[in-house]
Amino acid sequence: MNIGIYGYGNLGKGVEDSLKRNSDMKLAAVFTRRNPESLKIATQGVPVVSADDILNWKDKIDVLIICGGSATDLPEMTPYLAQHFNVVDSYDNHSEILTHFKNTDKAALEGERTALISCGWDPGMFSLNRLYASCILPDGNDYTFWGKGVSQGHSDAIRRIDGVIDARQYTVPVEEAVERVRSGETPEFTAGDKHKRECYVVVEEGADKERIRREIVTMPAYFEPYDTTVTFISAEEMKEKHGELPHGGSVIRTGRTGKDDCHRQVIEYKLSLDSNPEFTGSVLVCFARAVCRMSERGNYGCKTVFDVAPADLSAVAREEIIAHLL
Amino acid sequence: MNIGIYGYGNLGKGVEDSLKRNSDMKLAAVFTRRNPESLKIATQGVPVVSADDILNWKDKIDVLIICGGSATDLPEMTPYLAQHFNVVDSYDNHSEILTHFKNTDKAALEGERTALISCGWDPGMFSLNRLYASCILPDGNDYTFWGKGVSQGHSDAIRRIDGVIDARQYTVPVEEAVERVRSGETPEFTAGDKHKRECYVVVEEGADKERIRREIVTMPAYFEPYDTTVTFISAEEMKEKHGELPHGGSVIRTGRTGKDDCHRQVIEYKLSLDSNPEFTGSVLVCFARAVCRMSERGNYGCKTVFDVAPADLSAVAREEIIAHLL
Repeated sequence: MNIGIYGYGNLGKGVEDSLKRNSDMKLAAVFTRRNPESLKIATQGVPVVSADDILNWKDKIDVLIICGGSATDLPEMTPYLAQHFNVVDSYDNHSEILTHFKNTDKAALEGERTALISCGWDPGMFSLNRLYASCILPDGNDYTFWGKGVSQGHSDAIRRIDGVIDARQYTVPVEEAVERVRSGETPEFTAGDKHKRECYVVVEEGADKERIRREIVTMPAYFEPYDTTVTFISAEEMKEKHGELPHGGSVIRTGRTGKDDCHRQVIEYKLSLDSNPEFTGSVLVCFARAVCRMSERGNYGCKTVFDVAPADLSAVAREEIIAHLL
Repeated sequence: MNIGIYGYGNLGKGVEDSLKRNSDMKLAAVFTRRNPESLKIATQGVPVVSADDILNWKDKIDVLIICGGSATDLPEMTPYLAQHFNVVDSYDNHSEILTHFKNTDKAALEGERTALISCGWDPGMFSLNRLYASCILPDGNDYTFWGKGVSQGHSDAIRRIDGVIDARQYTVPVEEAVERVRSGETPEFTAGDKHKRECYVVVEEGADKERIRREIVTMPAYFEPYDTTVTFISAEEMKEKHGELPHGGSVIRTGRTGKDDCHRQVIEYKLSLDSNPEFTGSVLVCFARAVCRMSERGNYGCKTVFDVAPADLSAVAREEIIAHLL
């Protein structure tokens, strides 16, 4: 399978790393909106191509993995590219997914291509686990906890404050809340009951730290509802201790079965990730395999992780999966 | 959807409980090899029918959920019934699954029916999680821990010892082993490193307890490789404290990504079940929904959980799933 990567940020690099670990797949080209000459990629001998020239690659790419941002890139990119390529994206704006789905579906059907949107771990593997668990236990409650991990959106929000040079925000699940749910309780939580926010901030010399702290903790939606701590650190400490992008979290469903709902059943799916973009990239790559197969079968249009039969994700033959993993 | 239950033991009762919680499904009949007059089921107004008369129900059942034992029942029952009905079973003899698959596939294709085998949680949801995790993290290691929970096979093995009236065996994961794996280590375990066995035994008056204890802890394969504790209790205590069938466990995959494998990624799927048969029954019921749909689409033959697109498990419309669960 010949795979193209469209966009070479953290996620694109994560996809590239994963492709090296899947011997049935090959990185065919990296597409960039930057000057291709300026981009040095980790894989030797693979061309870096201007995004403007992508249509010349229609016959050389089996699946294009689009590694753009959800805010402005993907709503345009994915429908456009889905007319010409089988594609996978990681669109994560939950409230707009249905619109993105419809736009992409129309384009992919017109081009007779298969497009998988909103892949990764949330949306993605977490969504799958919400679906499986709610189907198994219709009488139950869902809980999603995120972290401990770096939230890019919250880090960016802090960076926009006057006097801030750099910032890293960790979303931290409240361990007592997680334990209550794990034990089978079904509490009603506010946002602040479930998560805390830890902020590490580098400021300009002479900046008013108290004013910056106040601007952070009172920021509506982002920080105001949460127990938020702000720690001012040096640029060196930022680089040394906060250079990685860990993340993770848990999807938990607690349900009831039996006479008079006498039995508690708890399902938990938990991720502990040293690198969020490399894990997300790994998920995109195995779903790209499924997209290629679905397209070969003429199963065109927009798909989500819910539409993919798990066997299609695997490089291993069906009989072997049945014999060894079932 | 009209569902039939074939076999009314603990699992059949679990399926019956789950059907009440799924309003798009209806229990049409319970089939039994016992005298139907002798069987009182929990759902009012539903016929109990002799297994001998099952072929008269060919047009009245959309999916038949077969709740027989894996040792001798299912290898015969499932291929036979799959010629005439869409079926789901929970065949769990891992080493013989491929044979069972082939026998059932032949029968279902001949009868133009859809048959799903080896559904439940292990095999079933645990298998699915082994597959998803191994596709996402090809460079990694798999670990499955079971318990704490009642193992029927091990309990039965103790009951066959001379002087034993009743027994309950709990499989208990070794917590230190689980924690090592969760932290991203990749140890090589022997069977006894991963699980302990706790046995509660009721014996005849005057029985030689030391002889019985020795016969248990030295039993090859079943107990000899494990740290096994034997506690003798009264029939009353057995009834009071050990009447339930809890179970659960974890499937964990630890993998590596990044330059020089620098990043650890850990995926865990964990079940904590008050009632093993009711949870297993709940899994069978939502997969029966998918079997019905696959059969309507003419997708005949033998299937496993790996072949089922998750969206087919849900009673909820596709757009709603995308909007609310993705």
